[in-house]
Amino acid sequence: MKQVSVELGNRSYPIYIGGGLMQIAADFIGDRLTGQTLVVTNTVVEQLYLEKLLAGLSGSHAETLVIEDGERHKTVDTMNKIITRLLEKQFSRTCTLIALGGGVIGDLTGFAAACYQRGVSYIQVPTTLLAQVDSAVGGKTAVNHRLGKNMIGAFHQPAAVISDTDTLASLPPREFRAGVAEIIKYGLINDAPFFRWLEENIDGLLQREPACLIHAIEVSCQNKAKVVARDERESGLRAILNLGHTFGHALETALNYETWLHGEAVAAGISMAAHLSVKTTGFAPADANRINALLEKAGLPVSLPKAVQREQLRELMSVDKKTQRGQLHLVLLREIGKAVITPEFSEADLAETLAYYST
Amino acid sequence: MKQVSVELGNRSYPIYIGGGLMQIAADFIGDRLTGQTLVVTNTVVEQLYLEKLLAGLSGSHAETLVIEDGERHKTVDTMNKIITRLLEKQFSRTCTLIALGGGVIGDLTGFAAACYQRGVSYIQVPTTLLAQVDSAVGGKTAVNHRLGKNMIGAFHQPAAVISDTDTLASLPPREFRAGVAEIIKYGLINDAPFFRWLEENIDGLLQREPACLIHAIEVSCQNKAKVVARDERESGLRAILNLGHTFGHALETALNYETWLHGEAVAAGISMAAHLSVKTTGFAPADANRINALLEKAGLPVSLPKAVQREQLRELMSVDKKTQRGQLHLVLLREIGKAVITPEFSEADLAETLAYYST
Repeated sequence: MKQVSVELGNRSYPIYIGGGLMQIAADFIGDRLTGQTLVVTNTVVEQLYLEKLLAGLSGSHAETLVIEDGERHKTVDTMNKIITRLLEKQFSRTCTLIALGGGVIGDLTGFAAACYQRGVSYIQVPTTLLAQVDSAVGGKTAVNHRLGKNMIGAFHQPAAVISDTDTLASLPPREFRAGVAEIIKYGLINDAPFFRWLEENIDGLLQREPACLIHAIEVSCQNKAKVVARDERESGLRAILNLGHTFGHALETALNYETWLHGEAVAAGISMAAHLSVKTTGFAPADANRINALLEKAGLPVSLPKAVQREQLRELMSVDKKTQRGQLHLVLLREIGKAVITPEFSEADLAETLAYYST
Repeated sequence: MKQVSVELGNRSYPIYIGGGLMQIAADFIGDRLTGQTLVVTNTVVEQLYLEKLLAGLSGSHAETLVIEDGERHKTVDTMNKIITRLLEKQFSRTCTLIALGGGVIGDLTGFAAACYQRGVSYIQVPTTLLAQVDSAVGGKTAVNHRLGKNMIGAFHQPAAVISDTDTLASLPPREFRAGVAEIIKYGLINDAPFFRWLEENIDGLLQREPACLIHAIEVSCQNKAKVVARDERESGLRAILNLGHTFGHALETALNYETWLHGEAVAAGISMAAHLSVKTTGFAPADANRINALLEKAGLPVSLPKAVQREQLRELMSVDKKTQRGQLHLVLLREIGKAVITPEFSEADLAETLAYYST
């Protein structure tokens, strides 16, 4: 088992990474479950892992709430359902929520924990690759609004993250690859050696070789923890974790969160950010090609669905959270392993990028 | 003009108290309004003060959103309306919300600011006595759930509070008196000399003599700021500000937030807490009588409406946020100026108190 720590003073917490962890969850978090406990999961994950987790909590009585699967349920209404259950069961401020599932479950449960009685404790038990390397780590919680993704939320750190890599065996290939997009992102923004490691080990990773998997998750979490420790509430640096996300979120909204998975939209967004970087920061075209090659090798999209209109994308990009005083900021690459957050790009170059990608 | 500071490190902020402040609001907060600004108010306050405030912001362009008046609109749905407006107008993270109104507007606007893009800036411009002495200060924001008051919320400090005491002239007498209940509370929990001052000056305060008013608001804010600075997120001490509120919230919920104002429910709750204190902490019966006398002199209720059932009250009290591991904690008085938070009271004494007050 590997352990990564997110260092945030009295809000620091451990991330446990390894196989078979769910069965022994009580070893890690048993002492945190002395109050009331609610496990939130979805209809798919329930079938696969709920029993296993409850057994792993050995003895701690836990309520469970099963919600519908899918990003379109990541709404204020679903968050309110969690709150209603907590109130019906008279949960107090000393309760703990456990998010068992992917990014949607983690974001919803984390946001409910942030708001219930102005903040209660929660634990992430991510069951997708994307959640294990990204969304379960760092305390960003949110729900979507019809006018924009993750627009209603809170910074609320979990008390612990338990990433049982056994859960990844059951992950559909598309979802697995969506997680790989975020892993590639860490190499690009922060860690050139890791990007090279990925170029060399992408086959093993896609074949889900345990050693490859655990290494990729550990290094991703280390990279994310480092950034979050320096800028918990995204007043600056943390925004580099959003490489590909401004394009990606606009894409997801344009596609009504239905056609593409988040990681797929991010992959196309990374490709677009690399393209615009070539025009803007002097990023080497050869490196943009390396990025596209790795994304394609990972089975991720580097072009857009035909239905997407570039005018709509540009419009949707302007509600991005990195907009400051009307000026959109984008995460661009100077080189592999070095990202910058900048308002300094030309509208013409952005328009060309959108035109290049939307046929 | 008086100024009180809430000392919270890099989240510290000033409270400005005095007459005619709204007209010169830009002097206090002009430099904070360089981004987009949204003023949130209700249909009643709009008629009275919106124009005045907008003039006082001299030059800073501000959007406005007017919502229905009343506690029953303090819901997730109304909060979502504020978010929708922010998204429609493409407000970015550097925007500022201004809450112009009483506690409902402040709580709603503050919670929307806490959640929009995971947190944006907001300013309180309270127009009721209750908001000026209590709800606008200290960063507690929330909305109600049908199963409990203020159950969904966040700790999110405002950037400034502007308490224009001129607004109190237009306040209906019942609402004014409801604010006096919270003022009396500060004397009881923390400040015996202030309680004596209130006994001597209650007539002047009720007649809204400017000097009395400003003094009462200033001392109330000082008392609250002191407690909040020591325990921002209510991990302990801050709960003493809830004297009378466990009874009061249960009453409000039982009455469906309709019959009584919050301050009226708190007044009856304070009387009940004093009664239970006599049985529990050795609080002097003579001092309980002084409290009832002062509350009655202020025109506040010290008994319950006939419709309220004691069994229902007891049931509603158990969802109180001060419940820890199934054990209800109450704020009780040892003496005037000295409150304690304690689970040490007998169910029989609590039952007797509820029976004594519900006829």
